[in-house]
Amino acid sequence: MIKEFLKKNQKKYDQTIEQYFPKKITKSFLEKNFGPGDYDLGAINKCLTTPIWNYFEQGGKRLRPALFTLVLGCYKDPEPFIQYSIIAELIHNGSLVVDDIEDNSDTRRGHPCMHKKFGLDVAINAGNAMYLLPYFILDKASEHLKSEIYHLINKTLFMLHMGQATDIHWHNNPQPLQEEKYLQMCRMKTGMLTGFSCRMAGLVGEIKDLDALENFGRAIGIAFQIKDDILNIEGGDKWGKDFGDDINEGKMTLLVIHTLDTAPKKDTKRLTEILNLHTNDKKLINEAIDIIKKHGAIDYAKKKAEKIITQSWKDVEPILPECKNKKILKELVDFLVDREF
Amino acid sequence: MIKEFLKKNQKKYDQTIEQYFPKKITKSFLEKNFGPGDYDLGAINKCLTTPIWNYFEQGGKRLRPALFTLVLGCYKDPEPFIQYSIIAELIHNGSLVVDDIEDNSDTRRGHPCMHKKFGLDVAINAGNAMYLLPYFILDKASEHLKSEIYHLINKTLFMLHMGQATDIHWHNNPQPLQEEKYLQMCRMKTGMLTGFSCRMAGLVGEIKDLDALENFGRAIGIAFQIKDDILNIEGGDKWGKDFGDDINEGKMTLLVIHTLDTAPKKDTKRLTEILNLHTNDKKLINEAIDIIKKHGAIDYAKKKAEKIITQSWKDVEPILPECKNKKILKELVDFLVDREF
Repeated sequence: MIKEFLKKNQKKYDQTIEQYFPKKITKSFLEKNFGPGDYDLGAINKCLTTPIWNYFEQGGKRLRPALFTLVLGCYKDPEPFIQYSIIAELIHNGSLVVDDIEDNSDTRRGHPCMHKKFGLDVAINAGNAMYLLPYFILDKASEHLKSEIYHLINKTLFMLHMGQATDIHWHNNPQPLQEEKYLQMCRMKTGMLTGFSCRMAGLVGEIKDLDALENFGRAIGIAFQIKDDILNIEGGDKWGKDFGDDINEGKMTLLVIHTLDTAPKKDTKRLTEILNLHTNDKKLINEAIDIIKKHGAIDYAKKKAEKIITQSWKDVEPILPECKNKKILKELVDFLVDREF
Repeated sequence: MIKEFLKKNQKKYDQTIEQYFPKKITKSFLEKNFGPGDYDLGAINKCLTTPIWNYFEQGGKRLRPALFTLVLGCYKDPEPFIQYSIIAELIHNGSLVVDDIEDNSDTRRGHPCMHKKFGLDVAINAGNAMYLLPYFILDKASEHLKSEIYHLINKTLFMLHMGQATDIHWHNNPQPLQEEKYLQMCRMKTGMLTGFSCRMAGLVGEIKDLDALENFGRAIGIAFQIKDDILNIEGGDKWGKDFGDDINEGKMTLLVIHTLDTAPKKDTKRLTEILNLHTNDKKLINEAIDIIKKHGAIDYAKKKAEKIITQSWKDVEPILPECKNKKILKELVDFLVDREF
């Protein structure tokens, strides 16, 4: 049901994005939004609109709009508020573009990263501009919603950048880490935006219990990130990113942290060595993965993700009215634990 | 008087920034703003706070806060609103960090650019985070101001990114350009933020005529940009950036546009050739500069800047009450035409 829900609504979310930010910008669009001017439409479309839309069209699960729709849908018809569902998705996609540059990644969603395809200058500029697209959606919003949502966007994005600063520091300076510090980093880097989707559903729907909704959303993001890290070394056909590139980047994932915590010194020393090499050598990457697997880190991380998401569901479940959307949310919780792509 | 004003207030603006975003982030600062969590303070300070503050401490004229203070000061005491003066400056500095990465520049304000000093990943992340620092200032603002200022920030930043997209497209694809298209690009890239400062002074001070104030601020930014382009090829001791790097980048400045418009074919062909080379060769850069100088482009651009700023002063002058701040603003107008750094 959740898979169908995501698949069914993906197109609707993309159409909503297009309604507010067209695939090809026209003079009248710019003049309506920014006043008269001698804009170079060719340049703007080539270096801004095209790379942004090319990115959206490469897919993505649209998990964040789905979360918004499902949470709001537990209380009222989400259709009149559909434009708000895409705000987190716009920001999320911007952050992926920028993260891929910072991590010097090659592929995303099975395609070359934006900076590989359009150049570093175009990609930084377009990625940053994606953070700003909520402008077009909020233009007609009430003063109250503008004030609340913009402030929440800025808070969320600042946390995201603190999370990214932390992550950058760690993989430039590999070091033993406490699990709690890692989970806090995930909360900032991934949990904030999914939390944002749920809190915003509450805001738009004038629902109390905003914190409970946000905490549930954050747990989904964290569990999602842990699963992402597992998939990165488990791989599989449906996996669009570079297999094992977390090892190449020297990323401190929960898998690595647990292995360094529990494995004998010989193995932790070797794993640290390989992580520090930032190597592309498949043999070395597989050696690191074998060490991680040998000490049960995958099973440990899976259980951790499961625990986080199950606990947060327990907390939010009582405040969500019984309905079809709630059932789908429960399936989403189960799907996140079991997903293979 | 304007030089003294800028010099005298620079420290005050920097202290205001520090009041909202300290040089060293503490656990209590983070928990107050973002709730409890197991933050890695060392990582956040090293990869976020330190590069940002290192950048602020390298100087800058703080023209944008000064503009805000002077415009608001024509109507009421600006001191109780001083925190709003720095919003444009935070964003401006973020955009310089990001622009330098996109242009692959080496130095800024006489120092290595942030990405040269701290690495590309840290610089993109910290530069982007600077766009978000207004969060700390607006946290205590009224719903009305939050709504208005955030929306204005997003509009301004989106225009800035369209301007940058245009600029990137042009220097990756050198081509003959209409002057009006160039001036529109300047309006987006540089004029928007100075316009923002003046409009925000009007907003905070509850002054009518917001458009007139904004237009004046935009003209200041455009004139400033034209002067910047002139200084880049005229150089001088006080000039902190790389001399002639606009030639190296193949930038379409008003100087280049005018030369391509008016010089004989032999010279325009040679100038285009050198711009397309993206060369570091001082001899070639000087050859390009000689062609530009020979055909009177510097004088032409100076007059253009003067005309833009003088006209905009004529428009805004009648709505500004007579006072000391107005006199300083008039001096700023004159200073921008004559400045040598």
